[in-house]
Amino acid sequence: MARIVALHTHDVRFPTSQTLDGSDAMNPDPDYSAAYLRLVTDAGDGLEGHGFVFTIGRGNDVQVAALRTLEGHLLGRDVDATLADLGGLWRELVHDSQLRWLGPEKGIMHMAIGAAVNALWDLRAKREGKPLWQLLSSLTPEEIVDLVDFRYLTDALTRDEALEILRAAQPGRAEREARLVSEGYPAYTTTPGWLGYDDDKLARLCREAVEDGFRQIKLKVGADLDEDLRRLRIAREVCGPDVGIAVDANQRWDVGDAIAWVERLRPFDLAWIEEPTSPDDILGHAAIAKAVAPIPVATGEHGANRVLFKQLLQAGALSVLQLDATRVAGVNENVAILLLAAKFGVRVCPHAGGVGLCEAVQHLAMFDFVAVSGTTEDRMIEFVDHLHEHFVTPVDVHSGRYFAPKAPGAGTEMHASSLAEYAHG
Amino acid sequence: MARIVALHTHDVRFPTSQTLDGSDAMNPDPDYSAAYLRLVTDAGDGLEGHGFVFTIGRGNDVQVAALRTLEGHLLGRDVDATLADLGGLWRELVHDSQLRWLGPEKGIMHMAIGAAVNALWDLRAKREGKPLWQLLSSLTPEEIVDLVDFRYLTDALTRDEALEILRAAQPGRAEREARLVSEGYPAYTTTPGWLGYDDDKLARLCREAVEDGFRQIKLKVGADLDEDLRRLRIAREVCGPDVGIAVDANQRWDVGDAIAWVERLRPFDLAWIEEPTSPDDILGHAAIAKAVAPIPVATGEHGANRVLFKQLLQAGALSVLQLDATRVAGVNENVAILLLAAKFGVRVCPHAGGVGLCEAVQHLAMFDFVAVSGTTEDRMIEFVDHLHEHFVTPVDVHSGRYFAPKAPGAGTEMHASSLAEYAHG
Repeated sequence: MARIVALHTHDVRFPTSQTLDGSDAMNPDPDYSAAYLRLVTDAGDGLEGHGFVFTIGRGNDVQVAALRTLEGHLLGRDVDATLADLGGLWRELVHDSQLRWLGPEKGIMHMAIGAAVNALWDLRAKREGKPLWQLLSSLTPEEIVDLVDFRYLTDALTRDEALEILRAAQPGRAEREARLVSEGYPAYTTTPGWLGYDDDKLARLCREAVEDGFRQIKLKVGADLDEDLRRLRIAREVCGPDVGIAVDANQRWDVGDAIAWVERLRPFDLAWIEEPTSPDDILGHAAIAKAVAPIPVATGEHGANRVLFKQLLQAGALSVLQLDATRVAGVNENVAILLLAAKFGVRVCPHAGGVGLCEAVQHLAMFDFVAVSGTTEDRMIEFVDHLHEHFVTPVDVHSGRYFAPKAPGAGTEMHASSLAEYAHG
Repeated sequence: MARIVALHTHDVRFPTSQTLDGSDAMNPDPDYSAAYLRLVTDAGDGLEGHGFVFTIGRGNDVQVAALRTLEGHLLGRDVDATLADLGGLWRELVHDSQLRWLGPEKGIMHMAIGAAVNALWDLRAKREGKPLWQLLSSLTPEEIVDLVDFRYLTDALTRDEALEILRAAQPGRAEREARLVSEGYPAYTTTPGWLGYDDDKLARLCREAVEDGFRQIKLKVGADLDEDLRRLRIAREVCGPDVGIAVDANQRWDVGDAIAWVERLRPFDLAWIEEPTSPDDILGHAAIAKAVAPIPVATGEHGANRVLFKQLLQAGALSVLQLDATRVAGVNENVAILLLAAKFGVRVCPHAGGVGLCEAVQHLAMFDFVAVSGTTEDRMIEFVDHLHEHFVTPVDVHSGRYFAPKAPGAGTEMHASSLAEYAHG
């Protein structure tokens, strides 16, 4: 019987603040970082489970310390039994009453659980010889709902309703999987839009984005209205009228400011307004959504847990749900959020970028297409062309689309050389 | 010029799980703990600022690691300038963009900032020779609003509205301060109500509570309905019809369960139902509040930040707001929450117990009485008779009331001997 015999952690930081990649109205100087976890077994097959939490620098060491608190739950576990019941494992970790106190179900401790859960999925996918999206898409509806903890969700989504959604999507699975492999999944790019770039760089990157086949780009806004207007004018001119332009305020505004500011940006035909205010402000997002309609409101990358997403959907506070691979408690909680989105008929356009977020989140969007929502209509995965070279299976994005990974695993494994070279402290 | 020259941390854990003190439906075996912080200056006056985060055991080391990330902001600071602008300091810590990513404004990182902010208030109060409640109550309305970050609040409370509330309470300040010193502030006790106690112990502790002058007790519920009914029957019989009995489900239920369960408990004339579901579920609490009316819904001890409290108030989701001294980012954020409660006319009954929470939170309730709401009507501070002996200035609770602390400081200083004796690891 194989057991989990070691949990290794790494504090990895890339000095991205030096080039202002990733600069926005709230995050002027991020150093893209990962609190990284490797689960080692004694199976003798050479396979490890890798997972991480994406952070932007300071405090990454605290995030690593949180990963270490999970040793007591993980070391010595039977690998086969654990991987066969990842729903049970999720409940055990999230409902550890002493650790739960530190959230509950939010912030550093919850994200640490997410990294561990994702590492276990990475291990399972490698052992089954499948990419994660395909592994998830091969599960029965019953197996999928068993992954989900419906606690706090049943006023919006019951287990039976989730089963119904999944069963309704069963018939076309094979055909959609084939389409995904041949055609890929739509992407949009944020590469042109960081606040720290000058106008020439903005225009050049917009041009390249359109030439590369992207049908939507995204600009950071919210620091200075005149700047935003000037940059939107440049982007719209270069992109032409048929390419979508979304804007992202990164939580910069109060509710009233958001409504007034977006009103001024309205002439540029916005694809959506993203993170207009505090990610916790469900009622605030609902008020903004009502005021700026028909411009869609997008949020989710900082959404702490499924209870927040449930309410955003109940309140009609978003029309674009931005799933994040490492903010919530891993694959299982993201499956719950995908089911909630399907129940409410809201499109999911995952957040990515950072380090490894593109590699990780694509699997969830692809699983959603094959086995949950059954559609890519008006949906796309964010793409930022940074730091992919550090991953063993970097994303394959071209012609404005993500092409489905074929390698076994969850996409979360970094090169050992990168872990070593960018080790912090 | 005096500077902050050291930040010392302590991982302190008390083995409370051995006696089932503190056991409830979600927390069967808490080990009451503190991630504890001491700020040392070179002023030569022997005064230190002490603050802590209350946790219930595992992960307290991660909470301590989070305290250490604040060294870069605190070490070397001019003491006088820092203490004269604690609003500015709060903004600097909470809006450190890299640390903020780890929440944002929730969980381990946010609570760590709360401990540092509280330690600075402890230092300021000691230097001014006043207990914190009196120091806060001596500030002008302008000085008080300068402590508050109104970001994300202005759709519910503006700076001008806050000033108006504070100015309206100015006339009676001296008279209320005198009343507070002579009569104290009402308390209720949770000492009888832990789930781990047998019926005899429950009855004995209820009797003692009434004899001690408490006008309200609280029982933990939510694990087993028949048990709850039996325990409520015992408590009501011992306490008689005139003593309030509140019940606390510690987040055990989904929305539908909460409504059905409380319906069964209704005959016992409940003072309030506390934490019926996830602390993040604003819309859920609103639905429960509507269904169980006129039984008041109480929540707040796990409320992550002022944005959550704003929405609970906007949605009519609570009628008893339970302030906690160490869950949000310290005194400044709690001042914001007290102002929000005053704006919405909702009563505040602080959460306490744990270790040091009674000592810390009483200052905020007393400040509220003197300078914000101006009333103690239907208000009371929770009291649990545990672990007070570890504090340099333990609470003075008798005749069912908290008597106002006279010693300088925020009440947050533990004996050095306790820090040493209960040091973990």
